[in-house]
Amino acid sequence: MANRQITLIRRPIGMIDGTTTSIVDAPMPICGPDESLIKVGTLSIDPTIRTWMNDAPGYLPPIGIGDVIRSGGAGVVIESNSERYQVGDVVLGVTGWQEWALASESNRFTVLPNGLGLELATVMNVLGTTGLTAYFGLLDVGEFKAGDVVLVSGAAGATGSVVGQIARARGAAKVVGIAGGAEKCDEVVEYYGFDECLDYREAGLTHRIREACPTGVDLYFDNVGGSVLDAALANIAMYARIVMCGAISQYNATERGPGVANTSMLISRRGRMRGFIVFDFASRYAEAHAELAAMVLDGRIVHREHLVDGLEHAPDALNLLFTGGNHGKTLVVVDASIRLD
Amino acid sequence: MANRQITLIRRPIGMIDGTTTSIVDAPMPICGPDESLIKVGTLSIDPTIRTWMNDAPGYLPPIGIGDVIRSGGAGVVIESNSERYQVGDVVLGVTGWQEWALASESNRFTVLPNGLGLELATVMNVLGTTGLTAYFGLLDVGEFKAGDVVLVSGAAGATGSVVGQIARARGAAKVVGIAGGAEKCDEVVEYYGFDECLDYREAGLTHRIREACPTGVDLYFDNVGGSVLDAALANIAMYARIVMCGAISQYNATERGPGVANTSMLISRRGRMRGFIVFDFASRYAEAHAELAAMVLDGRIVHREHLVDGLEHAPDALNLLFTGGNHGKTLVVVDASIRLD
Repeated sequence: MANRQITLIRRPIGMIDGTTTSIVDAPMPICGPDESLIKVGTLSIDPTIRTWMNDAPGYLPPIGIGDVIRSGGAGVVIESNSERYQVGDVVLGVTGWQEWALASESNRFTVLPNGLGLELATVMNVLGTTGLTAYFGLLDVGEFKAGDVVLVSGAAGATGSVVGQIARARGAAKVVGIAGGAEKCDEVVEYYGFDECLDYREAGLTHRIREACPTGVDLYFDNVGGSVLDAALANIAMYARIVMCGAISQYNATERGPGVANTSMLISRRGRMRGFIVFDFASRYAEAHAELAAMVLDGRIVHREHLVDGLEHAPDALNLLFTGGNHGKTLVVVDASIRLD
Repeated sequence: MANRQITLIRRPIGMIDGTTTSIVDAPMPICGPDESLIKVGTLSIDPTIRTWMNDAPGYLPPIGIGDVIRSGGAGVVIESNSERYQVGDVVLGVTGWQEWALASESNRFTVLPNGLGLELATVMNVLGTTGLTAYFGLLDVGEFKAGDVVLVSGAAGATGSVVGQIARARGAAKVVGIAGGAEKCDEVVEYYGFDECLDYREAGLTHRIREACPTGVDLYFDNVGGSVLDAALANIAMYARIVMCGAISQYNATERGPGVANTSMLISRRGRMRGFIVFDFASRYAEAHAELAAMVLDGRIVHREHLVDGLEHAPDALNLLFTGGNHGKTLVVVDASIRLD
């Protein structure tokens, strides 16, 4: 039996394509001491995967040439030499783009509880990396407080949509989204319940933020960087907080863009801008999981998953994040039989 | 008797010149109820004055056309209808570029104590806005801690030179300056005692910062913005703090520069960037004054003042800050007879 994998064969310039990855049949992994064998069910397709393909310093080392594409995912434990996991446990962690993965002391997984009343895809969305990024980014890094005017980019995305809904539930004065295209903007307002949504593809974003937030933006949650960040900076209120969790506009950039011109607004407005990686909050995931699950179950958080079938389509699924062709959290289903009860 | 003033007659584009300001003889101000009449002795020439000449939102409203140029300064109280000031007090506050000013409830001054053992020029430098900016910026906004690798731009300037010396006195692991030209860099190392100083006018600043700070920059104190900020961002250590107190490289800009490209380093390094205005710390000036005075008296802080004689030369003195033609804190002496005992 083989382990089908997608490996990196050439570092991409711009969007990934057929020359970036290869599908290979590797030998089945052998479950050594303290290791557990996991059959992969669903992959979490996140923008950060694209950054790991570059040969550039980041919060994790680049994926090596010939290595399996690093990725979050969920699966079921088939064999276990570790007391951490029982056979049959559904687990969440770094599976990579492959059919079989090993849990080890250096690659630990989280055992998902059954009986939450949530689908695996929902858990991977709202309780996964993207939802956790929304939760800790808004509440801890952004020091959200009731009465804040909150602006969120990538508002139709898996992280942004949850940011806005938590802010709404916690008493924001106004929640304004930024997304690409009229259809996405409609979704942000109609489905996710934001007060307003601005299309960054239309001209005059800086001015339109001012109209939507006449008293200024107290908290800006930035997923995208670049010119959208610049337009937000131009409109910050006194003592504003800017949360940076990603810069998706830059991930496929092949040349240096115009850069951020309005950083000195941080001086006149006494603003603060802070970047973070959700893994830093790992010791507090249980707190976030409990609150996020409760918010999903009582309808304060609605969510949408974009399911792509088949391991071989993972590269295309990653590109969807950058073309805007996805709706909601993008997941690749490798084995549909692996579910939560 | 007239009150000689320098007023704004046209908003400058780029550096100020002969068309920007005018010298006029206004009537002597009349000292009304709760007001005090101040004879101006010395003006504090600070980069922020240039920003007030633009018709742009800032932390204070722009100087109006026809109005006296707003400026810090020191003087002596000649007549007083306020219990706050006694005739003969030497006071520090917003005098404007003129020979006579009024203190009022909306324009309060600080009474300087005699007997400090410090010259007025020294007080206006190290205990003035620039020194206070260094003190609160490094210690409060930057959350400096012993063992930090500290990088300071504008290191030969009135603020930067004090930042580096406080960091040194408080136990920084390394203090590296950035300044313009070999002469300034020598001054930063030889006179102000920094470990090293990098000339931003030479090529490869990003790489040279990496060589000077191989473990990364824990705290970057930014006076200048633009490409120097970008080079610093490329070299931040984990959990780095970036203090923004000004963006002198942008103040005379007539076109949009390349912008800051490396803001996403804040994400991978979990950095934070915060802007501030020293006036926000006004309630704590006494604490800073006591410590800064002690550090000057025992030699932990050395300082240098660049004195320009005559009110009429205030515009030229302001331009010196941007050409780098000054050495140390730039002051304009309007009346040399006004001193501290």
